[in-house]
Amino acid sequence: MLQKNVSVLFCRSIRRFASSLSNIYANRTHTCGELRSSHIGVKVSLSGWLEFRRMDKFLVLRDAYGQVQAYIPENQPELREMMKELTYESVLRLDGIVRSRGKNVNTKMPTGEVEIEVNSINLINEAPKALPLRPGGDASEETRLKFRYLDLRTPQMQETLRLRSRLVHDMRRFLVEKRDFVDVETPILFRRTPGGAAEFQVPAPKPNRGRCYSLPQSPQQFKQLLMVGGLDRYFQIARCFRDEGSKIDRQPEFTQVDLELSFTNQEGVIKLLEDLIVESWPQPLESFRPNAPFRRISYNDAMKLYGTDKPDLRIPWKIQDASELFPHLLTASSSSTAACVVCADAAASVTNKIKQEWKRLIEMNSRSAKFAIFDGSKEKWFKEGHNVEEIKRKLNVGSNDLCVISWGNEENVLYTLGQMRNHVAEGCGLRKKQQMEFLWVVDFPLFVEEEGRLVSAHHPFTAPVAEDFALLRDQERRKSIRGQHYDLVLNGVELGGGSIRIHNGQVQEYVLNEILQEDHTELSHLIEALKHGAPPHGGFAIGLDRYVALLVGKGDTSVSVRETIAFPKSHTGRDVMSDAPAIPTQKQLDKYGFAFVVKDEKTTENDS
Amino acid sequence: MLQKNVSVLFCRSIRRFASSLSNIYANRTHTCGELRSSHIGVKVSLSGWLEFRRMDKFLVLRDAYGQVQAYIPENQPELREMMKELTYESVLRLDGIVRSRGKNVNTKMPTGEVEIEVNSINLINEAPKALPLRPGGDASEETRLKFRYLDLRTPQMQETLRLRSRLVHDMRRFLVEKRDFVDVETPILFRRTPGGAAEFQVPAPKPNRGRCYSLPQSPQQFKQLLMVGGLDRYFQIARCFRDEGSKIDRQPEFTQVDLELSFTNQEGVIKLLEDLIVESWPQPLESFRPNAPFRRISYNDAMKLYGTDKPDLRIPWKIQDASELFPHLLTASSSSTAACVVCADAAASVTNKIKQEWKRLIEMNSRSAKFAIFDGSKEKWFKEGHNVEEIKRKLNVGSNDLCVISWGNEENVLYTLGQMRNHVAEGCGLRKKQQMEFLWVVDFPLFVEEEGRLVSAHHPFTAPVAEDFALLRDQERRKSIRGQHYDLVLNGVELGGGSIRIHNGQVQEYVLNEILQEDHTELSHLIEALKHGAPPHGGFAIGLDRYVALLVGKGDTSVSVRETIAFPKSHTGRDVMSDAPAIPTQKQLDKYGFAFVVKDEKTTENDS
Repeated sequence: MLQKNVSVLFCRSIRRFASSLSNIYANRTHTCGELRSSHIGVKVSLSGWLEFRRMDKFLVLRDAYGQVQAYIPENQPELREMMKELTYESVLRLDGIVRSRGKNVNTKMPTGEVEIEVNSINLINEAPKALPLRPGGDASEETRLKFRYLDLRTPQMQETLRLRSRLVHDMRRFLVEKRDFVDVETPILFRRTPGGAAEFQVPAPKPNRGRCYSLPQSPQQFKQLLMVGGLDRYFQIARCFRDEGSKIDRQPEFTQVDLELSFTNQEGVIKLLEDLIVESWPQPLESFRPNAPFRRISYNDAMKLYGTDKPDLRIPWKIQDASELFPHLLTASSSSTAACVVCADAAASVTNKIKQEWKRLIEMNSRSAKFAIFDGSKEKWFKEGHNVEEIKRKLNVGSNDLCVISWGNEENVLYTLGQMRNHVAEGCGLRKKQQMEFLWVVDFPLFVEEEGRLVSAHHPFTAPVAEDFALLRDQERRKSIRGQHYDLVLNGVELGGGSIRIHNGQVQEYVLNEILQEDHTELSHLIEALKHGAPPHGGFAIGLDRYVALLVGKGDTSVSVRETIAFPKSHTGRDVMSDAPAIPTQKQLDKYGFAFVVKDEKTTENDS
Repeated sequence: MLQKNVSVLFCRSIRRFASSLSNIYANRTHTCGELRSSHIGVKVSLSGWLEFRRMDKFLVLRDAYGQVQAYIPENQPELREMMKELTYESVLRLDGIVRSRGKNVNTKMPTGEVEIEVNSINLINEAPKALPLRPGGDASEETRLKFRYLDLRTPQMQETLRLRSRLVHDMRRFLVEKRDFVDVETPILFRRTPGGAAEFQVPAPKPNRGRCYSLPQSPQQFKQLLMVGGLDRYFQIARCFRDEGSKIDRQPEFTQVDLELSFTNQEGVIKLLEDLIVESWPQPLESFRPNAPFRRISYNDAMKLYGTDKPDLRIPWKIQDASELFPHLLTASSSSTAACVVCADAAASVTNKIKQEWKRLIEMNSRSAKFAIFDGSKEKWFKEGHNVEEIKRKLNVGSNDLCVISWGNEENVLYTLGQMRNHVAEGCGLRKKQQMEFLWVVDFPLFVEEEGRLVSAHHPFTAPVAEDFALLRDQERRKSIRGQHYDLVLNGVELGGGSIRIHNGQVQEYVLNEILQEDHTELSHLIEALKHGAPPHGGFAIGLDRYVALLVGKGDTSVSVRETIAFPKSHTGRDVMSDAPAIPTQKQLDKYGFAFVVKDEKTTENDS
């Protein structure tokens, strides 16, 4: 019989005859997803959500583990009658017996061989008739975020969060059990760091009013301090915070797999990361498992061949010098060049409209050079009377290919071709290709010039490569110093980066003081620490959200990190569901002794 | 030969013949702690800190894994001479051969059977002659916190952090591998919650200036929303934040083992917690491993027998009624009572000075009642001529015992005896006793009266026990409703708490609106969620820092949580090492559009 039961009353006995791990401590005998023909004849109690109903006698019940069909027999007219009232997404408990579906096996459902012959339905919690979204149905991203608790019921979200949980668990097992790493939690309420423009501020309470904690962008200082503290091998799945405003697909809080070890070197850290990734590779993605060692390229070669320090190796095309073929594009300047990238089989995918859009995107950036796109099937390229056939032969351009030529200052040309290489690949669908191409980029410059002064290419704690160490004191040649920094790139996305750190306090002080001319008093505790017996050390951090997004996309770079986070923020940094951030009460403001000087108008959310 | 090498240069080859997991990726053949007589004759490279030196020929090298003695042979006069310069805590690399110590075995050292005959010393990083503290040496807590990177090198801190890491790992293994739980990260930047007086505020950037994120005191809302989202079994080692000012041994950020599951009940959650604790029990504490099921007591019985809802069962004494024995202490009031607690073998530990101190402590609290302390050896107790011998016989008071008698209002009497029971036990050293007594406290009241109105005893999401559900609508009897809340107490410390939640949106709305009369608009998203098909669910949270403190103290409740955290805050909420919180820059204030109205004078730190 159908029992309406919307009270907190709930059956009190825990069944101990659980058939799988998920049923221990639970008021059910089985999950919806686990029933097979081997269960035929078994009495079951299931709890879950009403996914679907048909002809007032069939229904599909769904829980976290799958779906199963249930059937109300003819001798239960009362149940059949009352089933009409049941709303989708209501929580039900069904009791019944597992029967064979006979000839009506549904091969698309894992439980499709069986159905439940129901003898009791218990309505545990009723959902409204009109739902803002049905799990798995179409809905705008704003609706999905506002009703995240419904969106989380979709199989895709369930699978993603479970894959993430399992991945992190397997990383931990590798690090703790196979490599002796120690999981250490570091503070989230910390102090401002130099240049920490992107740090959230937390006004401190009495007796520290007028001061702020900062939320750390990474546990960088702490992990180095742990090395000084002799912890030797540290890791943490660390929450980090970065206030970058409304950047596409960036979250104000994100997670990194953070690790550091002592008495190691660049080869050691690179090997560790390769082992970590291969050993924790998700079982459902077995066919994509990478082989170690991963490919490796120097920063300079990456720029020359791909026009970027994070090349997507799913794209086979490389940049080629074309100065000799197009002498009319060169000027007298020593940095003047012409180069091209031949995009095989790309011609058919590219319309003039797309070309115009690329032109617009490239020209928006001050680093761009002039460029032109030619179709391999066309007989004329530039207005000038080149021997196009010979050029095509020399560059190996087929009639289905596109050739992008850029000319001007070398740096700009490489930048432009790097961008165009990605754009054309995107147009051809190559960026959605399900393939995983890991790549190490090494030998980055330690410093880069910005507005006439040197700044750290990554951060001021990176050590120079041994051969370049002496150049630190050579003001003229500092720009050519290579850092012991390494980036891990997957399909053109920077998955993470790391470095061997400066472990000598005097050297660190010199870099901060003399080379970077930063106020190092803010880092005096770290410099002091390095002076008190710091071991040589280095580490790495993987952007976990991005990594999971690439995994669930099987390499497709268009999956948003928001799909990998249970409760993400919108583009404007809001939690659309709870309407965070909220206006603080006067009591709260008084407690922390601050007031707002500027208040933004509340804008409407537009996240779709 | 001794090589001074304070550059970033460091040997580049990673030795692959590592003898233990800790040596993979590391520039060493062995750790200092692993060498045994089986290694005699082996050529080793070790890296670590100079712990000790003697007679310019012996030194002790320490790393994260232990210590080993090294010996500079006579044929290395240059090394012997230069060893004099080496400062303690400098980082060294030693190369040499493992030799037997022969008759000079040091049985106190795990590596005491061997020593290294050194043929090369490489000074990797020099420490200063004058150290603010030596790892393991005496130092004030302020010094230990300021130079935490030195303090972390002490074996005690190393062991604690490793025990914590392993404990958490084993909890994860149990939850993920044996119980199918999913590790889900929930946001740290969230919205204000009703009554969230203790929440830190984070001013939001553009376009949300004028609004604040709040740092959550627990993931309570998120874990319930995950249940609504069908996640079924969630856990997280969650960072939580609570601004409680300068309370002794409280940290503004702390960690809890947070979990929630659907389709369960109180028995299910209690069994889960028992299994979790027993299965993840640290191997080094094997002799303390508890047996499940743990003891259980109702809130009312706990108050009656122990005068507290978190009794320390290491203390064998119980409160007894004594109204009949001391009729002269009673008044006409119906709540008037007299009761006592007999503290066996406590008489010798208690001086008059201690008694005065207890009196002062008890009287500070408005909940206290009058009390008197009598010595079992004394012949006279009260001035009135009682038959003391008979009373002692009836109460079973021996001559080495103390008897604490309290009288007045029953609630105050129980409170006073509960406090005195702990005080006397503390005086006898019972609170430092190495023993682990777990206890469940159940059947708490759902609401308590505060200033004439009902408030939630724990939080407004707790469901009433089924039998009391109907009383929600009975205004007169609401105070007698029991909640499905359960606390886990270890040695008188509340280790954690949990409850079965209200899963019905209408009931939740009624409790917030009608009973608690709270502004429930702040929780409208949660109420909405419950109305969209929430399953029955419940959960728990363990205070991890406190649990680890009790574990490393083997039950001793006097170990501070600061001993379990790598970088704790001081009593005043400061990071003494980095001097956080810091004064924000004007640029930071401008970015978030706020200004300080109140600024505290910088007080000096006093943490010892």
